[in-house]
Amino acid sequence: MPELRENLATKRWVIIATERAKRPEDFKKGKELPAPRPPYDEKCPFCEGNETSDQDEAFSIRDPGTKAGEKGWKLRVIPNKYPALVPAQKGASIEVKRHKAGIYLHMEGTGKHEVVVENPAHNKTIATMSVEEVAAVIKSYHERYLALDWDPAYKQVIIFRNQGAGAGASQLHPHSQIIATAIIPQHMRYAFNEAQRYYEELGRCVFCDMIKYELAEKERLVMQNNKFVAFVPYAALLPFETWILPLKHKTTFSDLSPEDIEPLAQILHDVLAKFYYGMNNPDYNYCIRTVPHYSACEPYYHWHIQILPRLTTPAGFEIGSGMSVNVALPEESAKFLREFKPEI
Amino acid sequence: MPELRENLATKRWVIIATERAKRPEDFKKGKELPAPRPPYDEKCPFCEGNETSDQDEAFSIRDPGTKAGEKGWKLRVIPNKYPALVPAQKGASIEVKRHKAGIYLHMEGTGKHEVVVENPAHNKTIATMSVEEVAAVIKSYHERYLALDWDPAYKQVIIFRNQGAGAGASQLHPHSQIIATAIIPQHMRYAFNEAQRYYEELGRCVFCDMIKYELAEKERLVMQNNKFVAFVPYAALLPFETWILPLKHKTTFSDLSPEDIEPLAQILHDVLAKFYYGMNNPDYNYCIRTVPHYSACEPYYHWHIQILPRLTTPAGFEIGSGMSVNVALPEESAKFLREFKPEI
Repeated sequence: MPELRENLATKRWVIIATERAKRPEDFKKGKELPAPRPPYDEKCPFCEGNETSDQDEAFSIRDPGTKAGEKGWKLRVIPNKYPALVPAQKGASIEVKRHKAGIYLHMEGTGKHEVVVENPAHNKTIATMSVEEVAAVIKSYHERYLALDWDPAYKQVIIFRNQGAGAGASQLHPHSQIIATAIIPQHMRYAFNEAQRYYEELGRCVFCDMIKYELAEKERLVMQNNKFVAFVPYAALLPFETWILPLKHKTTFSDLSPEDIEPLAQILHDVLAKFYYGMNNPDYNYCIRTVPHYSACEPYYHWHIQILPRLTTPAGFEIGSGMSVNVALPEESAKFLREFKPEI
Repeated sequence: MPELRENLATKRWVIIATERAKRPEDFKKGKELPAPRPPYDEKCPFCEGNETSDQDEAFSIRDPGTKAGEKGWKLRVIPNKYPALVPAQKGASIEVKRHKAGIYLHMEGTGKHEVVVENPAHNKTIATMSVEEVAAVIKSYHERYLALDWDPAYKQVIIFRNQGAGAGASQLHPHSQIIATAIIPQHMRYAFNEAQRYYEELGRCVFCDMIKYELAEKERLVMQNNKFVAFVPYAALLPFETWILPLKHKTTFSDLSPEDIEPLAQILHDVLAKFYYGMNNPDYNYCIRTVPHYSACEPYYHWHIQILPRLTTPAGFEIGSGMSVNVALPEESAKFLREFKPEI
């Protein structure tokens, strides 16, 4: 019998379609890992040595004495060449005006769209980087988050990573993206409202309740360290969806403290290494879910990383209903991830 | 400069990312149409002659004297072999009880999951069927919709079609699917609420206002006949998203009258033929958006078909924000579709 499960934080029901459930092994992307690629590609715009000197670097980790737009970096944050949103002209009002187009509303597409070039090497990914290299990626997320979240021109900062063409990545080189928007997207507002409603009613953070429960139950746990926990949510939207959350309550991603960076890098690396080696490098997206600092006076939200492997294709039902069908049992996905130990 | 546009009916903002906008021709799936396939495949469970005799037929169009589960049909609606939801046991209460699983809620996955085998021929699709054949498909949708929408066990009926592997289709044989759920999915409720709010404020159906405006403006029109209109929405979520709506106000899909069937078949066929011949058979999903009959006492909704070609891959930003990025200008998509006339 299929089952419907409710995500306690978002109040979304998900269909767990056990009639067509697959074994965890059936989701492997291929029989083995892809063939190794060289660490440099002369056509890649993100490879070291292919920088164009006019590129702004919003943040970088560089060898002493090297300059923005030159070689000698470990990580750099640059503007997206094809931005989904662009900054307002200098001196323009930060108020984004709505304009009428007949019966409709539109506004200028102001915002910021940045690329985190995570590593000089073309052939690395989070799972195959050192924890120190992943810590640099986390540091860049946090630095850019703080700068953009506090910029009054922006209302929400979305940090995300697309791994593989099936997850929408157009470049192989390891990179993440950051988009700051001048509005709170409707679906995020809905999710924030549900978490806030829980807090209003019970006086507790819904994510803290989930963490406490998952640590006690254990069957959906993937791993934990002294600062973070990873588990497959009870109402996982898709096979192997995994959340990484700070163990102690932290409302927004800006609350990440310097001593959290290394433990976060370690758990993100280790979870993604389980995907990479255990499932042969599946395509995935992850995003950092957080409320902006200005709506964080109540501790109703709890920032986290949501990892969504692309192992199934959402189709007409999901589009029409907005409801997910998950063909894997969350407890089985978690068990597979928990027990798989990559030999690295 | 990119632009944000608001969908008047759903209040969702969409990013129209003109910085990376492509020409309509750039979205063609391949250089030419795929090679023809034979009309029969011995391994296809939906081909005529491969019926299994124990299959229920919830609806069929058959030659006189032939029986359910046998050859001699033009169209048949059968149970999905791998149902996402299954009917409750006979005699069970229609009340779907929520149960506690620790701090979470779950319920039994009751519902109905049917497949419309649209045609005996393996190698047809809506675009290449005759209008009469498409009318049979519409008739089957309507018959099954009426039966399931009025069944007190179900709260919402979602009719959808997946074309191509990229749109989640696991069978090549032309088919649609129908899923009846025991709940209203959260994201549908949000959309219904927005349309109802518009009606409460202005006393008019938001879709009627959109139709009137699009007919006057013309730049997003794709085509129309005496009963239906097709246009690309102002805030199209994706390149070439197209809506088909009844010209006269009709709240729910159950309001389709017998004389509407042929004009609906004609416009659906013709729009999809523009996709098929103009863009070389792209993958797509469509779904019928409607409120259930029991919430239709106020004329705030207006049923329609939403066609979403799969020409781009939603990635981490779309997942994280719930906001769409459309890299095609809706007016250009509409112009291409409006002016392309397949030679058939």
